[in-house]
Amino acid sequence: MDEPVPDGFGPDHDLDLIVTLGGDGTLLRGARQAAGLDAPVLGVNLGRLGFLTSVAESEVEDAIAAVGSGRYRLERRRCLEASVWRDGEEVSDSWYAFNDFVIHKSGVARVTRLGLSVGTRHGERETVGSFSGDGVIVATPTGSTAYSLSAGGPIVVPGVQCILVTPICPHSLAVRPLIIPADVDVRVRSVDRSEELVLTVDGQEVQPLDPDDEVRVKRSDLAISLVRLPEGSFFTTLRRKLGWALEMEREATT
Amino acid sequence: MDEPVPDGFGPDHDLDLIVTLGGDGTLLRGARQAAGLDAPVLGVNLGRLGFLTSVAESEVEDAIAAVGSGRYRLERRRCLEASVWRDGEEVSDSWYAFNDFVIHKSGVARVTRLGLSVGTRHGERETVGSFSGDGVIVATPTGSTAYSLSAGGPIVVPGVQCILVTPICPHSLAVRPLIIPADVDVRVRSVDRSEELVLTVDGQEVQPLDPDDEVRVKRSDLAISLVRLPEGSFFTTLRRKLGWALEMEREATT
Amino acid sequence: MDEPVPDGFGPDHDLDLIVTLGGDGTLLRGARQAAGLDAPVLGVNLGRLGFLTSVAESEVEDAIAAVGSGRYRLERRRCLEASVWRDGEEVSDSWYAFNDFVIHKSGVARVTRLGLSVGTRHGERETVGSFSGDGVIVATPTGSTAYSLSAGGPIVVPGVQCILVTPICPHSLAVRPLIIPADVDVRVRSVDRSEELVLTVDGQEVQPLDPDDEVRVKRSDLAISLVRLPEGSFFTTLRRKLGWALEMEREATT
Amino acid sequence: MDEPVPDGFGPDHDLDLIVTLGGDGTLLRGARQAAGLDAPVLGVNLGRLGFLTSVAESEVEDAIAAVGSGRYRLERRRCLEASVWRDGEEVSDSWYAFNDFVIHKSGVARVTRLGLSVGTRHGERETVGSFSGDGVIVATPTGSTAYSLSAGGPIVVPGVQCILVTPICPHSLAVRPLIIPADVDVRVRSVDRSEELVLTVDGQEVQPLDPDDEVRVKRSDLAISLVRLPEGSFFTTLRRKLGWALEMEREATT
Repeated sequence: MDEPVPDGFGPDHDLDLIVTLGGDGTLLRGARQAAGLDAPVLGVNLGRLGFLTSVAESEVEDAIAAVGSGRYRLERRRCLEASVWRDGEEVSDSWYAFNDFVIHKSGVARVTRLGLSVGTRHGERETVGSFSGDGVIVATPTGSTAYSLSAGGPIVVPGVQCILVTPICPHSLAVRPLIIPADVDVRVRSVDRSEELVLTVDGQEVQPLDPDDEVRVKRSDLAISLVRLPEGSFFTTLRRKLGWALEMEREATT
Repeated sequence: MDEPVPDGFGPDHDLDLIVTLGGDGTLLRGARQAAGLDAPVLGVNLGRLGFLTSVAESEVEDAIAAVGSGRYRLERRRCLEASVWRDGEEVSDSWYAFNDFVIHKSGVARVTRLGLSVGTRHGERETVGSFSGDGVIVATPTGSTAYSLSAGGPIVVPGVQCILVTPICPHSLAVRPLIIPADVDVRVRSVDRSEELVLTVDGQEVQPLDPDDEVRVKRSDLAISLVRLPEGSFFTTLRRKLGWALEMEREATT
Repeated sequence: MDEPVPDGFGPDHDLDLIVTLGGDGTLLRGARQAAGLDAPVLGVNLGRLGFLTSVAESEVEDAIAAVGSGRYRLERRRCLEASVWRDGEEVSDSWYAFNDFVIHKSGVARVTRLGLSVGTRHGERETVGSFSGDGVIVATPTGSTAYSLSAGGPIVVPGVQCILVTPICPHSLAVRPLIIPADVDVRVRSVDRSEELVLTVDGQEVQPLDPDDEVRVKRSDLAISLVRLPEGSFFTTLRRKLGWALEMEREATT
Repeated sequence: MDEPVPDGFGPDHDLDLIVTLGGDGTLLRGARQAAGLDAPVLGVNLGRLGFLTSVAESEVEDAIAAVGSGRYRLERRRCLEASVWRDGEEVSDSWYAFNDFVIHKSGVARVTRLGLSVGTRHGERETVGSFSGDGVIVATPTGSTAYSLSAGGPIVVPGVQCILVTPICPHSLAVRPLIIPADVDVRVRSVDRSEELVLTVDGQEVQPLDPDDEVRVKRSDLAISLVRLPEGSFFTTLRRKLGWALEMEREATT
């Protein structure tokens, strides 16, 4: 799927369950298909287990049996919506991301200077500031364990209502990952009017940006429901993927 | 103030405004006094402006005039509540922190191994895991710009409903700051039954811990209302304190 | 200067001093011209002072007077040399960098997997390992305060004989900046045979890489001599550029 | 061993090989005993392999056979030497560290302000600056994979002639790990005349510091020779300890 998500996209069927076979990237593509439907998504990983695809190939039958008998939980994950504005007008269709939008330099550009502002709950806009660097990641909590983590961002447990704004290799060492409320929007534009900026969607789709473009990101109503089996909790996945230790037990106090 | 916050603490007066004179530490002490009252707090900084005390000495009269004429906004900041448990029983009064609780090694101990668990919204407990390091910070969004920031945590904009759990110098490089929902609790205990752990409250009060103690932290109902003047927004303070650039303007597209 | 540095480059004159007018980038370009000469380089910065250009426009006359009367010190900075190899043959001219070589993804590639090896002093090669990420920086100590610092690298004081290898946004959180001896070489190649890799030289020149190319970097004999005035020491520059505090004085012990 | 290393320490025997049984900490203690001798040290690890102890219990016989038949390499590791000065006089015996010296707050002190200076090769002293934080680590390349790594320092390959100066949780985000030449000294003192500073040696020995004390650290002539078997190279250990990937192979270009 190489185009923006259309308004009434997805097949017109009654679906009980969508099973994706592949890695997290495959599930993200399936999630876009499923976003407008009501069907939950079960990610089966054919290789190394991912953050989103926590069922191994050998466990598929057990997993589907578990789903059939109701031994699962649904984790609802909202996505972010981005649009591109120029001279006060929207110049693109909306883009949807379950993990992240990245605004970054492309080609041979070494660095770019980006300016950020956020909305407030009082309906105003506040300038965050500007910084030079490789770009910026605007991520959902789901995306906190993807590119944002590599760029120095924190791990956000599902259920926290927030948006992550993680700068990529900022020149100023004082510019750090920012956690903003989920109900305000973020706007990013090029301060130095760079000609080589692109917008990347979940690491899969790319739109080149004009020097005068502003990217506006807000939380979308689109969501998917991930099927979670009892043994596939967030922290179980985290410990497995990041190699965190479990050893919580200590000797009795005798 | 060197003791736990008592249940019915604070003077029994009708107060319209509490003004603290000093740094952020002074305001934090004043905040404990004010936490049970309804009076908002205005922090006047006699030295370098802080994150919480954004009015300079020379601006006091203007600030009070602004408050008198209603040209201000109140920012409500909830605090965290900690208690110490041993063998299933609570063995301390409650502690309250507006910035953070820190569980860390003291004395000559080089390192400690801590085990963490969090509650879930389904009323269960989940093991996060254990890690070796200097300790762990459990912080409010307000505290995200204090010790947690020095330890590698993100900046949390006021209004995000969350608790930060920031490890201090963890041995495992994969152990990273964690953002959890504000309505679940965090429990921390020593896995190696260290004899030299202490609990620090807002960097001001210290309680030694027994090797078998478990510290339980949750969001409290206690809160203060910080007086915010129009020119003292969160991002204005951030730019000033961290040296972030403002330059958002670019040349017109002509 | 958009081409590789030729063997016998530079004008054929007797020069006592090269003065560059501009920022650090200008000086880097001047340094390539001066690298084959014996003339020292004095960087005058027309804007904000840089790490390499520590003389302000208003100080030019004093600086030249100081040089004339011998009140200066020369800081010799060696550069790195890179070549590109394919199927065991060198397929490019040599490139020279005073700050850094960067091997990174270009275009829309989200990530690349790079494999690194280093030579040993016993004449063997050792595999360092491979990692996924945005790319890798191979820097001189001079370059430690440039891009490498933004990517999480340490600050290297001039005079340490080493090469920095700093990964850019590595997926594995355990992959960290590496300091290797100056007299061994580093080789970098694409493990996943990425088609969109480029080699960037001091952030100024770019060579696209073939999926099978290997970039080999070693210390070069080429060097420049930076003119350092008494008030322009490395740490003075560091404090000014990074905002480090000076306050070393404490009250007398009375 | 809980006391400073005496001048003529160590047993007075002819030794061919010292074998330590235990973890890296045990080897560090053995190394102090061996430092004055000529005998190389072979670290056998009874638990999980360490950075310094890379021979497992089951491999002891093979390892000793390898040593007996000369199939090993000696890695010489120099140590650092620290002394404590007050009012211009040395007030302690010398301390020796193979990994690191740490000057840090103890007890309930939340933070301390330290001032640093380094010597230059021209025999002068230069002020580095001062910073607030938990303390500072002064480490050898060997110590770069110990505490310094947890505090954000780089990995230094054995053979680089340098000293690492790694701040611990500095308040200023611009204060970063520093690599200085091995032949200059570092001096650290309390700027705010903190009463609760301690000096820790290899994480094992502790000396309380007076508010007026200055700790001076330089490279020592003392060294140990670690026995390295062919399969126990630095990068092999690094990949195993940090979980770095090896996969360097790529498909042939056909």
